[in-house]
Amino acid sequence: MRNLLFNISYNGARYHGYQVQANAVAVAEVLQDAIEAVLHVREPIVGCSRTDTGVHANSYFFHMKTACNIPCERMVIALNRALPMDIAVHACREVPLDFHARYCCTGKEYLYKLWNSPIKNPFMEHLVYNYRFPIDVERLNEAAQAFVGTHDFRSFCALGGKEIGTIRTIHRFSVKREGELVLFRVAGDGFLYNMVRIMVGTLLTIQEGRLSPDDLPKILEAKDRRAAGKTARAEGLYLNRVYYGGEDIEQLNIHAE
Amino acid sequence: MRNLLFNISYNGARYHGYQVQANAVAVAEVLQDAIEAVLHVREPIVGCSRTDTGVHANSYFFHMKTACNIPCERMVIALNRALPMDIAVHACREVPLDFHARYCCTGKEYLYKLWNSPIKNPFMEHLVYNYRFPIDVERLNEAAQAFVGTHDFRSFCALGGKEIGTIRTIHRFSVKREGELVLFRVAGDGFLYNMVRIMVGTLLTIQEGRLSPDDLPKILEAKDRRAAGKTARAEGLYLNRVYYGGEDIEQLNIHAE
Repeated sequence: MRNLLFNISYNGARYHGYQVQANAVAVAEVLQDAIEAVLHVREPIVGCSRTDTGVHANSYFFHMKTACNIPCERMVIALNRALPMDIAVHACREVPLDFHARYCCTGKEYLYKLWNSPIKNPFMEHLVYNYRFPIDVERLNEAAQAFVGTHDFRSFCALGGKEIGTIRTIHRFSVKREGELVLFRVAGDGFLYNMVRIMVGTLLTIQEGRLSPDDLPKILEAKDRRAAGKTARAEGLYLNRVYYGGEDIEQLNIHAE
Repeated sequence: MRNLLFNISYNGARYHGYQVQANAVAVAEVLQDAIEAVLHVREPIVGCSRTDTGVHANSYFFHMKTACNIPCERMVIALNRALPMDIAVHACREVPLDFHARYCCTGKEYLYKLWNSPIKNPFMEHLVYNYRFPIDVERLNEAAQAFVGTHDFRSFCALGGKEIGTIRTIHRFSVKREGELVLFRVAGDGFLYNMVRIMVGTLLTIQEGRLSPDDLPKILEAKDRRAAGKTARAEGLYLNRVYYGGEDIEQLNIHAE
């Protein structure tokens, strides 16, 4: 028995998220179909994270325990042939049998891409959130520093989220402009349901003048979703890096931006 | 009566080219629908160029003669509201009544984007040509200089092309790598039917060892399509800049890469 860890990227536009569910095509299901086509057996796979409908991944990991003895490099080639255009396998490596793609994860980085122009980009449909009004990137970057550190993020968790603990540590949060793209980049030890989208949405609510940067500590203290701003659209969100502590595995994050 | 010149960009993936035709949706038809929705009259429009099914434009021009007195800036906003996500209007300006988007054009630049990796890019489906084998970019760049200058390009014109004269002047041709993207950039005073795609395809045929750089002058001399290499796929091709001599109008090429 081997435990194989795969690094993939996917365009989430056509999928109802990563996790297999009834009556909707998920990334995991398409991965399992491709694995079955290659191995002639339907192996269970374990992903590093759930992602919502329409959310993308520049770097995503899953592990699979298998008795197959196909070399890792061959697995990458064979799976890429079996997968559709919007899912790519970048790497595969054998890891210890007790390695778990979700439980061993020590942190993640998300990227949120916003196309900040009154004129849409015809080449980025479903890949960015279109936002027409001017954005003061430096002001939002400064405001976003209120999220950095260890806080109870219950106000930034979608109602209906099933997390028991809501305390998380945000390591860094930056807001930068690259031409018409505004990039929100946030890294932390873990994220609650919709947490990145609510943080980005709350920064946009500040941009729109309906909240002030000074409100952020109060919103965190409120521990109430209704205190925060809107939830930014899924289509701008990318899981960008996944951390596993060990440097060796980090090097598999080859597709991150 | 005013003559309005529009600068647009479009993702050609969903269209059967620019030019209106029976039984297939073309970019020009969608533009006319949007103009009709704004002006309540179906005005004829004249594009700067035909583009094939699946070909994109980073910068494209069309002119329209109209009695409407909507200011240019308002036209841009109204048309962008009426157009689908894959066509964007960047600018509109009034030009002399005798200005013609096609006849006044003094040159064009095309960009051909190739994704050069055994692993596809899930975010560039229909936007690049996927080519898995290694490319020696410097060698192809050197070979491409054979196209520069004034030549009879009949060998690089698709059979069935209706051009009467086949002599064109290529001003520059470069092949460059940007990470996994290989960019072919070619500017000239005019291009025959499929000429860029056949030039790029012939360079790839050289890459594959089935032609040599020394063959290019002989292929030009042959004046026979069968002497040249394959036709590269449409999905990698972008009309990138359109030249109108006057500096003022060139500044409208705002979306070129």
